[in-house]
Order: sequence, then structure tokens, then C-alpha cells
Amino acid sequence: MKIQTHKEHFTNPLYLESGRILEPYDLVYETYGELNEKKDNVIVVCHALTGSHHASGRYEGESKPGWWDPMIGDGKPIDTTKYFVICVNTIGSCFGSTGPMSAEYPSDKPYRLRFPVVTISDMVKAQRILFDRLGIHKAEAIIGGSMGGMQTLAFAIEHPRFAKKHIILASTYATQPWAIAFNKVAREAVISDPAFQGGNYNPEDIKNYGFSGLAVGRMCGHISYLSPDSMDKKFGRNYVETDGLYELFGRYQVERYLDYNGKNFVQWFDPLSFLYITKAINNFDATRNYDSLEDSLSRIESEVVLISFKSDLLFMPKEMKKIHDTLVKIGKKDSTKYIEIDSDYGHDAFLVEYDKFSHFVKEEL
Amino acid sequence: MKIQTHKEHFTNPLYLESGRILEPYDLVYETYGELNEKKDNVIVVCHALTGSHHASGRYEGESKPGWWDPMIGDGKPIDTTKYFVICVNTIGSCFGSTGPMSAEYPSDKPYRLRFPVVTISDMVKAQRILFDRLGIHKAEAIIGGSMGGMQTLAFAIEHPRFAKKHIILASTYATQPWAIAFNKVAREAVISDPAFQGGNYNPEDIKNYGFSGLAVGRMCGHISYLSPDSMDKKFGRNYVETDGLYELFGRYQVERYLDYNGKNFVQWFDPLSFLYITKAINNFDATRNYDSLEDSLSRIESEVVLISFKSDLLFMPKEMKKIHDTLVKIGKKDSTKYIEIDSDYGHDAFLVEYDKFSHFVKEEL
Repeated sequence: MKIQTHKEHFTNPLYLESGRILEPYDLVYETYGELNEKKDNVIVVCHALTGSHHASGRYEGESKPGWWDPMIGDGKPIDTTKYFVICVNTIGSCFGSTGPMSAEYPSDKPYRLRFPVVTISDMVKAQRILFDRLGIHKAEAIIGGSMGGMQTLAFAIEHPRFAKKHIILASTYATQPWAIAFNKVAREAVISDPAFQGGNYNPEDIKNYGFSGLAVGRMCGHISYLSPDSMDKKFGRNYVETDGLYELFGRYQVERYLDYNGKNFVQWFDPLSFLYITKAINNFDATRNYDSLEDSLSRIESEVVLISFKSDLLFMPKEMKKIHDTLVKIGKKDSTKYIEIDSDYGHDAFLVEYDKFSHFVKEEL
Repeated sequence: MKIQTHKEHFTNPLYLESGRILEPYDLVYETYGELNEKKDNVIVVCHALTGSHHASGRYEGESKPGWWDPMIGDGKPIDTTKYFVICVNTIGSCFGSTGPMSAEYPSDKPYRLRFPVVTISDMVKAQRILFDRLGIHKAEAIIGGSMGGMQTLAFAIEHPRFAKKHIILASTYATQPWAIAFNKVAREAVISDPAFQGGNYNPEDIKNYGFSGLAVGRMCGHISYLSPDSMDKKFGRNYVETDGLYELFGRYQVERYLDYNGKNFVQWFDPLSFLYITKAINNFDATRNYDSLEDSLSRIESEVVLISFKSDLLFMPKEMKKIHDTLVKIGKKDSTKYIEIDSDYGHDAFLVEYDKFSHFVKEEL
């Protein structure tokens, strides 16, 4: 599989949903496989909150491959011998595309809190402009889980003639208060940490000295990514040090897991990007600029495949089913499919239980 | 209804499960109704994590009555014309019973982190010693929800001849990793806040200047007390300021709810008590000193009534049902009852949806 990473620079203004403008801006993206002559063997993969354009393959020195490595590659469900796969780092993120820590032109100082609020639609719009520059005007499919699923749905509604098929995993039509509440705890933990310094933190300092607010926020996120059952299986009531039960700070295994993932997160994700992207997730509502969900989904002209996971407690199966049922209701029965995967893994299932859903993706492509 | 608040001082050592000793210690408690001559018309009410001995009635100047006011009083489900009701503030708490901010005798300085880890069994043991002093050697019933339910179950197992009936609401036989994870985020938020000062905070300072870690911790708790459905009904996707959608810190109603409850919590609960009591909850495991749940429950000689709430995501109905099923399995079918209440309110239901469960309690008494 041929992997390439690119950065594109745009000087035309990006008109955001908020009315604000991003100008200039960069988009970093990764591609897998080769673009055919007609430039139409394209599959777009959209990443989640903390994901990046690096969806597959492993670069020299990397301890882990891209976040959806089992899904993308030669002979894999998203088959790079057939397709040209492209994954774009969203605007607002911190892996090379323009985000709150990018320089605010013409200064060389980062935007920080002056960065505009971006939405899922803005992320999608920027990707579409990139594809246009690359001469890509058609895609076979767009696919994504969680926030990637929101982008996929936004593509389907707002760019209805671009892709033939949209595959949405573990996502929703509108972020519900339960998910907003998890984000709230995380956001509040970040903002109220003195290390945040009202957004004026030094990125090197927080890597060296830690940023407990971001760590706590990530821990809270991890609860919502798992499920009671997956925690039971993974950790049970196991204790880290068996004799530490009566020490106030003695830890259960589940606590160690959260500690590790929380504290590690600070090393690879930016607090301001975290705030901006969780805001984009909170604000996601496919009905916002329409009269109703029926109205917004009626703009879709492609096939829509919805894959939900039974134990997903962040974006529940019923939210996914509502998309399907609404599509059926408005006469799109033949172009939609709803698959509910029996999994204990919770929201994380789309990044873990490949054997349970990857064959569905393979069939669809 | 006659309400009285008392404080009892104990100079005999309290031998804790950890092997450590609490000496001397105080217990604050509230009583409702009148004790009969035989001192056996007693109902013990056990409070939850942030509850107190003040379970019913309203004192002058109070904005809210006790935490289970609709349940306890003349003619109420726990009828004070018939029963003498007693509710004891648990050790480790911060409403008058000995806790981490109590003076460490013989000094006049607070224990802070030198306070020993206390367990649910320790809380129950201390109560039993208090009842003994009051000449109460029998109770009609013990009742409690959440951590109060843990105390109730511990009473049933460890003091099997004290009460005739134990009514446990929204609780568990052993705290599962899902609940420990919520506590972990909350505990970590508290500990990592510089305002905690390694446990050496000034209580007045945090009331005046805030303690964001405790606020964040409480917010996280509130997620686990509610449910996706109750949040949908209560808040939906409503925004506080409709024009603030594109402001990074603009808030949804669910965020305002969490903000209010989180920030308010700092005014009335102590961070160290929060750490000690969440530790007691995490450590609760009715099987710990026994071979199995069958073994521990086989010590019970009373009736056990279990009331769970369908949407409770903190202590799930299946955990409560396991207590019931195990009791049935070991031949106690005639002395146990399992009731699952159809409620959307999540864990908080036992403090909210009185009309759905209070008649069951009334019937049982």
C-alpha cells in the first residue's frame, strides 16, 4: 500500500457557519493506494475527536499504526488495491491542519482563544474544497465513526452529489445532552486548571509538567467510550496492589487504566483543540438549519449505511436508528440500511471489535 | 413529628476494618417521632455519599428540607406516628460525625490525610455502637439508597439479628468498575486541583475562592446520577443564550445545570470527606471477607427487600437482582423480594420519583 502525507495551503477565505472567516488555512491529509485516471475511485475516511489524518500504516519509529489500520490497506475492508483512500485532519485539530495553536496571519502568534468556533459542517466544507483542488469531484464512499460519522452525515446532507455511499458508525444525528454532559466535565476540567492560563499555556510546559485538567477530561471521556460490561470484563474489581485497599490513594485496575490514558493524553493532544472540537461535537445537529430531521435528510441522494453498537452509551443505537427510520419514512427505504452490532465494547467498539463489523463495511464497498 | 438532633461522644476506640483505630469519635444523628417504652419501634435510615443525618423536616432558615423528607414523617411512608426513625451521619462525613477535618486527639489540628480509611462496615459498626448506647437493641427495619443501601446490606450481613427487615434501594452488593471509574474522575479532579494543597486547604478559602476540582468531580457524579433519558426530558439540546452557539464558552442547559450543581457543592461538602467516602464506596464488596456472595448472604436472618430503578446507570438493576437471586439460590426465597421500578430518572430516582416507589416502602413497613 502506498501511503503519502501532504499539506495543502489555502489563501482563499473559508467562510464558517458562524459568519467568521478562516484565512489562510492549511489542511493536512494522508492518502492510501492510488488515484485512478478518472479520479473517482475515492473513499473518504473521517476521523473522530482525537483522531488524525494518520488512519493507517505505521511510520518508522511509531509505536502504533494509524487509528483504523485494520480497516484500510491492501485486501483490507477498505481495499487500497481498489480504492484511493483519503483522510483529512479536521480544521480545529492539532495535527497539522489549522487550529487554535496555528499562527493568526499576518502575525506569527497562535490564535488561541481568538480562533473561531468551527462546526462539523465547516470541517466538511474545508475537506470538499481540498478535494476540489485535488481534482476529486466524486467519491465512491465516505465513512467515519463517532465525530467521523457526524462529518459523514454532514457530507451526505450538505454535499449530496459528491459520494455514492455514506457509512456512519457509532454516531448520531444530533449530540444529545448525555454526551454534552460528558464533554462538559472534560471541558470544565481543562478550563479550570490553572495550567490552562486562560488559554495562554506554553505547549512545551504542559508536556513537561503535566496538565491535570486535560488528563481528568480525558478520563471522563474514556468512561463514555467504554461500557459497564466492557469494564467488568477488562478490570472487574481487581486491585493494583492487593495490600493497598486501606490506603486512601490505593488504586483499582480501572483507576490505573484511566490514570495512564489521562496522563498520556497530555503528551499528544492540545487543550485548545480539545475545547474547539468538543464544542463542534456539542453543536452538531443535522436539523439545525432545516425545519426537521425529515427535511434535512430529504436532501440526501446517496445510500446511507448506519452501523451502531448495542452497548454504545455515548451515541446510542436509538439515535442511529432514528436516522434510518426517518430515511425510511421519507421514502428512502431502498437506499438505507441499519445494522446493530452486538458488542459489549461500548462506543469504542468501532475502534476495537473489527471482526464484528468490518465484513459489513467490506460488503458495502 | 418530633425532630431532634444529637451528638454522642465516644471515648472507647472504634476498631476499623483496616486495623487502624478511631479514638475518640463523635456521631451526630437525627431522630423523628418517639421511641416506645420497649425501644423497639425503630427504623434506621442510612444516607448516601453526600447525605447527612438531616433526612427529614425543615429547620428555621433552611431553604430545603431533609434529603428524604417526602418519605419520613407523620403519615408518610416511614410513619413517625408509629416509628422512631433515626438517621446517623456516617463517620468520614462532614456534618458533625468524626471525619478527616475533625481534630486528631489529643491535638486540636484536623486529621486531614492522616484520617484512616473507613469502610461501609466501619460506618455500620459505629452506628451499632451508638444504638447500643441509646438502649436500642432491635429495629423494625433498616432502609437506605445508594451508599445507604450498602450500609443496609452490611447491617443485614454483619448484624443479622438487629433488624427484622432490610430495604435496599438503588445499590449493589459490590461496587463495579463503572462506578469506580466515575469516582476516579471525581477524585482525580479533587486531588490534582492546586487548591487541594495536598490536603492542607483552608476550608474557608475554598468556600470563598472556589475549588474547581471538587466542582468538576461533582459534575461527573451528576452524570452518573442521571440517565440519558432524564437528561433528554430535562434539558434536550436547549441552549442558555440562543445567540451563543458560536461562542466557545456558550452553554447548553445541561451544562448550566452541571455548572450550578458543581460550583454549589463546594459550599456545603468537604473535599477530604469526599475522598474518604468515595473510597469507602469503591471498597464496598459484600463478598470481601467471605468465600462468595452465597456465603456472605447466608448470614442474613432478616427479610431483604430490593428496590432497583430501570434506568439506574450507576448501580444497575442487575446488580440488585443478583442479591435477590443469590438469596433465592441459598434457600431464602420466602424472605426476599425484588422490585424493579420503571423510571427514566436514573440513579437519582430514589430521591425524586417518590410516587413510583414510596408505596412499596409503606407496604413493607
